[in-house]
Amino acid sequence: MENFRYSNPTKIAFGKGMISELRDLLPPGGKIMLTYGGGSIKRNGVYNQVMATLSERSVVEFGGIEPNPDYDTCMKAVAEVKAQGIDFLLSVGGGSVLDGTKFIAAASRFEGKDPWSILTEGAVINSAIPVGTVLTLPATGSESNGFAVISRREFKAKRPFGSPHIYPCFAILDPTTTFSLPAMQTANGVADAFIHVIEQYLTFPVNAPLQDRQAEAILLTLVEEGPKVIANPKDYDARANIMWCATVALNGLLACGVPQDWTTHSLGHQLTAICGLDHARTLTIILPAVMEQQRVNKRSKLLQYAERVWGICGEDEDALIDEAIASTVNFFRSLGMPTSLGDCGVAPETCDEVTERFAAPETQLGERGIVGKDQIGQIMALCL
Amino acid sequence: MENFRYSNPTKIAFGKGMISELRDLLPPGGKIMLTYGGGSIKRNGVYNQVMATLSERSVVEFGGIEPNPDYDTCMKAVAEVKAQGIDFLLSVGGGSVLDGTKFIAAASRFEGKDPWSILTEGAVINSAIPVGTVLTLPATGSESNGFAVISRREFKAKRPFGSPHIYPCFAILDPTTTFSLPAMQTANGVADAFIHVIEQYLTFPVNAPLQDRQAEAILLTLVEEGPKVIANPKDYDARANIMWCATVALNGLLACGVPQDWTTHSLGHQLTAICGLDHARTLTIILPAVMEQQRVNKRSKLLQYAERVWGICGEDEDALIDEAIASTVNFFRSLGMPTSLGDCGVAPETCDEVTERFAAPETQLGERGIVGKDQIGQIMALCL
Repeated sequence: MENFRYSNPTKIAFGKGMISELRDLLPPGGKIMLTYGGGSIKRNGVYNQVMATLSERSVVEFGGIEPNPDYDTCMKAVAEVKAQGIDFLLSVGGGSVLDGTKFIAAASRFEGKDPWSILTEGAVINSAIPVGTVLTLPATGSESNGFAVISRREFKAKRPFGSPHIYPCFAILDPTTTFSLPAMQTANGVADAFIHVIEQYLTFPVNAPLQDRQAEAILLTLVEEGPKVIANPKDYDARANIMWCATVALNGLLACGVPQDWTTHSLGHQLTAICGLDHARTLTIILPAVMEQQRVNKRSKLLQYAERVWGICGEDEDALIDEAIASTVNFFRSLGMPTSLGDCGVAPETCDEVTERFAAPETQLGERGIVGKDQIGQIMALCL
Repeated sequence: MENFRYSNPTKIAFGKGMISELRDLLPPGGKIMLTYGGGSIKRNGVYNQVMATLSERSVVEFGGIEPNPDYDTCMKAVAEVKAQGIDFLLSVGGGSVLDGTKFIAAASRFEGKDPWSILTEGAVINSAIPVGTVLTLPATGSESNGFAVISRREFKAKRPFGSPHIYPCFAILDPTTTFSLPAMQTANGVADAFIHVIEQYLTFPVNAPLQDRQAEAILLTLVEEGPKVIANPKDYDARANIMWCATVALNGLLACGVPQDWTTHSLGHQLTAICGLDHARTLTIILPAVMEQQRVNKRSKLLQYAERVWGICGEDEDALIDEAIASTVNFFRSLGMPTSLGDCGVAPETCDEVTERFAAPETQLGERGIVGKDQIGQIMALCL
């Protein structure tokens, strides 16, 4: 096991009816900005539940944060935060609203010249407005970590940033708020959580058997519960299990003491930035190709994954790996997710456009830092 | 899944050499009390490593906190804390030193009449002196939770208490500090962690498959790694795996959304209070008896435990449960742990003494609250 540091300050309130806990979780006094997306929270009753707890509070609303939250939208909110003297940001919605809100929190207190430098140069964040969330879409894990991803459509860019200052103070997770999700968003969430685990698991062994099993615990549960929520969107237990899986998949615990990959995410962000594909759908297209292209480097873990997650046993190791990749693809397809660029009508030239973004010789992705432009070209070709 | 709240503010620094992180983890300024036990930290070099980071700090020492920390010892420290104006408590040692330190932290700022009421009446703790720890014995999980257990030999009493104010601010876990542990303490630690998991797992199903698998992940890893640390005390990876298992076993995560038992611990505390048996050794004696006496109530989970932890399959469910209990006993015995009162030379009359402590009709232990005096009598008889 490698050395590590771990801490996670987010308070979780999980279960049916827990939105009422907002009263206790919000800091007393001060002015709150409620951030949200396209308005689904007004249709499904979540907005009313939240507002019922805020009746005596000073609240400003900022709606319209889009999927893959845009830098320009966030900066409009930053102007509003400064003009209104906002003390707390309450994000109500999915991971995109929350990621946008985290950036608003950091950019509002950013002391440097240009907040874009947070995303391009890793400019240091010394402070952020406190954020809390009522999460309505289990997927990104953003509700309990210090990361966010922001897009800038103007530049066809999508970039992550992280800071200990942007962990949500609290996250309220009520599985009933996910009953009304469209099937595609539900599937996106299951796949996103699955691949977050894979990024921290499918690397190389470092004798960390607990972390391996914790990862497999989430993968097995997503494989088991995913089809249930697709078949029956109001299955409370299945919704709850998916929601908790998504949080634990990316709250930092799985990454303790082990190497991490994140190649699939790095390439996926480019695909979203270039063609606007949903984040999770880029991942289900790219991951099987990463498994295939990196099958030698990931051999030992691929064999463990084959056996423990898919129950595949046998003598011929290459056949086992083939079958594990096929099982992964079949799982994604069973959720209705695409597994090739063709599935989404993306033009083959896009592969080159993605690959070119990693042309700088210092760009080396993956758990060993050896996935460069050539390997990325091969991975993208396998996505066709 | 049941509703739950979860948060854990403890910062973990894990790995070889991490004691040097003390410099950054300790709050700046103020007066530190370094608490420790019988002096093993002076023999194994940990004391010197810690003091090297504190050379410019104002430090008072308080040694001699015994296994099963005594109320009277703690109250002596409380007097010292008040006399010296201590601002921070740094516990260096195992779970007993840390539990004692947590009580010192709470009692030093207790506003009620008698700090004993914290342990007898659950008197409310509104504040505590901040605590940090360098842990040298993986077992209790106290390094990352808000609980502690205190003994009062004068009254033959051993009682737990809990408060959000007593979570350690940080825990430094360097597996090399455990290389010099006597085999018996190593075995105690493995068994203690194992049974912490069991208390949160072996109850009744509530459709929480992730939590079940997270629990099984720890049990399987302890079964796998336990014998390695007994055989080779300087196996770094095995020591590291055991240490991380012990922390995750009782940091609150496993208990999220599921029922908990704690019968074995409740009875074990009485055995320790009455005859001075090591905590973990009371647990390995009592747990198999609890499994046997509660085999009907725990049937479904016992069958899952048999299959997933011990790989026991078959048609005859009663035989499967018998075999799971036997496997548990064999595992404990392979670690050199006792599994009956006779193994420790405890007189049979002690069973009655333990049982009498649960004579009050309102005393109902276990995940269903139905383990009363009669059941406890049967459990204790099975321990003979």
